[in-house]
Amino acid sequence: MLVPSEAGGQMSAASAPRVAVIGAGDIGRGWAALAASAGWPVALYDAETGPLEHGMQEVRSRVESLVALRRADRAEAGAGLRELRQSRSLLTAVQDADWIIEAASEDLAVKQRLLEQIEQVARRAAVITSSAGTLHASQLCARLRRADRLLVARPLTPVELLPLVELVPGPHTHADCVEDVRWWLTRLGRAPIVLRREVTGHVVSRLVAAVWRESIQLVLDGVIDVRDLDRAISLGPALGWAAGGPGINARLAAEGQGMSRFVDSLAQRYEGCWASLAAWDRLEPDARTRFARAVERAYADLDGLRAGRDQRLAALLRAVDEPGQEKHFLHNTDEPDV
Amino acid sequence: MLVPSEAGGQMSAASAPRVAVIGAGDIGRGWAALAASAGWPVALYDAETGPLEHGMQEVRSRVESLVALRRADRAEAGAGLRELRQSRSLLTAVQDADWIIEAASEDLAVKQRLLEQIEQVARRAAVITSSAGTLHASQLCARLRRADRLLVARPLTPVELLPLVELVPGPHTHADCVEDVRWWLTRLGRAPIVLRREVTGHVVSRLVAAVWRESIQLVLDGVIDVRDLDRAISLGPALGWAAGGPGINARLAAEGQGMSRFVDSLAQRYEGCWASLAAWDRLEPDARTRFARAVERAYADLDGLRAGRDQRLAALLRAVDEPGQEKHFLHNTDEPDV
Repeated sequence: MLVPSEAGGQMSAASAPRVAVIGAGDIGRGWAALAASAGWPVALYDAETGPLEHGMQEVRSRVESLVALRRADRAEAGAGLRELRQSRSLLTAVQDADWIIEAASEDLAVKQRLLEQIEQVARRAAVITSSAGTLHASQLCARLRRADRLLVARPLTPVELLPLVELVPGPHTHADCVEDVRWWLTRLGRAPIVLRREVTGHVVSRLVAAVWRESIQLVLDGVIDVRDLDRAISLGPALGWAAGGPGINARLAAEGQGMSRFVDSLAQRYEGCWASLAAWDRLEPDARTRFARAVERAYADLDGLRAGRDQRLAALLRAVDEPGQEKHFLHNTDEPDV
Repeated sequence: MLVPSEAGGQMSAASAPRVAVIGAGDIGRGWAALAASAGWPVALYDAETGPLEHGMQEVRSRVESLVALRRADRAEAGAGLRELRQSRSLLTAVQDADWIIEAASEDLAVKQRLLEQIEQVARRAAVITSSAGTLHASQLCARLRRADRLLVARPLTPVELLPLVELVPGPHTHADCVEDVRWWLTRLGRAPIVLRREVTGHVVSRLVAAVWRESIQLVLDGVIDVRDLDRAISLGPALGWAAGGPGINARLAAEGQGMSRFVDSLAQRYEGCWASLAAWDRLEPDARTRFARAVERAYADLDGLRAGRDQRLAALLRAVDEPGQEKHFLHNTDEPDV
């Protein structure tokens, strides 16, 4: 299951890694809530006091939400909340951590400087992951003496809910560090995937970017409104992909005719679309304004919208986790045995 | 709920439209199974006897699967199976139908000729929908005397499972016919959306084409293998989109800063991706072969894969349908009241 509650239940406090989350923004809060909800000891640090204190409150509230949504075990989450610490300095957050999660803003100079400071106070055996969405380990390590224990571990948001985490090792990252992080993530019920090389946006942002570009264009062209666009994705391809992924769906659709003929028919079916998809690199100011207005007009009751979205997401996650699905394709067969 | 079992239970046989499905391929079988599973009288026709007889068997088996997957009511499905007819001629299939569903192969001349034949034997009040994925009502009506009762109603596959149906009226389609089809689809637990104009591939295929192009390129470039690609989509954006759709997720993410600033940050985040996404219009023969081989290598046990995919899809659909979600965004507020 994606939530390995049995494994979590067996874990002694000693075997859980000590986690330091550096940066108390949305992603840092998600990481902290995720690890704390499994009962792991977490220290949260932010250079600014306001975001840190607000962040601590929200981490607690997100852990409680995970229990309410049946995405975390109540006893484990309680233990994690008792262990949760707010660190007044980088030193106290990092010095005894096994896993240091950098979650600062997406600014190369800021992250490089922060990682340099982390290195100066981290234990020799600690592993450092960056939550970078567009930056790479090969850039982030510029000020480090040791680049071998740094890799990118990019979650989606809400971090504590969506299982996928992209691991992107740099050219100097040691394979053992990648394996440590994979193992920790698996224990946290995540589904880590390892990219074979660094590409702009990793993998997920590239796919999401492709969908955003065409979606924005279809709305701006007046083909569809924002609400129907959301339905078009939610109740169509998103459900199909959540059940199978494009590769699986193609493999199954090809069963009778064979993959080569299926790929021929796929190419034929989509060539007209490929030739006419939106192809711009930049979203112009006027288009930004028009699209923002269209989304604003589409939805008013944000509280209801959020509650509905979060409930559906939790229900969908439980559906993917249903008993009997433990060994489905979503779980990497070469990942450590839980 | 997406499966309006209460409404279905209240329906008398007299109020259910008589459905004729013309074409017993995968899409025709799905339409027939969907309508029959709601207890509606369905006639299935195909010009070729082999596919028709095989199709009838599979329609029955799909209806039974819908019951087993808790996507259809057992009593209604039983009534539908008793009413299901195999038609030996187009005339007997169509002559008393209220809703004629054309599901022939995606060939303009074939569909135009078939629609002409349908028109000659259809009741005056019948509505005709084409399941065309790339063709449009404005092209399909070329040989018709009356273009006002024809529109495209494009489902996804598996037709009987995925809720979304794209309705694309042509320039001559009467609004009442669009409303009839919306109402029937809503009664069948579908989520119809109406496109405001004809575009290549309608909306869904354009979005899927964008994802396929980038996915194929990432696999061919060796950034990720097919299994991790499937995980990257399934356990990441697909779950997020199934819960909320991009518009909703954007609206919620923007809550603090406002939509305009959010769209600015979205544009900034994805510009690097947009500039570097795959941009080809054609998939070359060598690339087709390499991609087909990669998908073949990824998955071996097709029976297990199919059972797992279908189970997950049914569980995901139940999750979207959970009690308390009747009024969520997925349901068009301007649709007829069930």
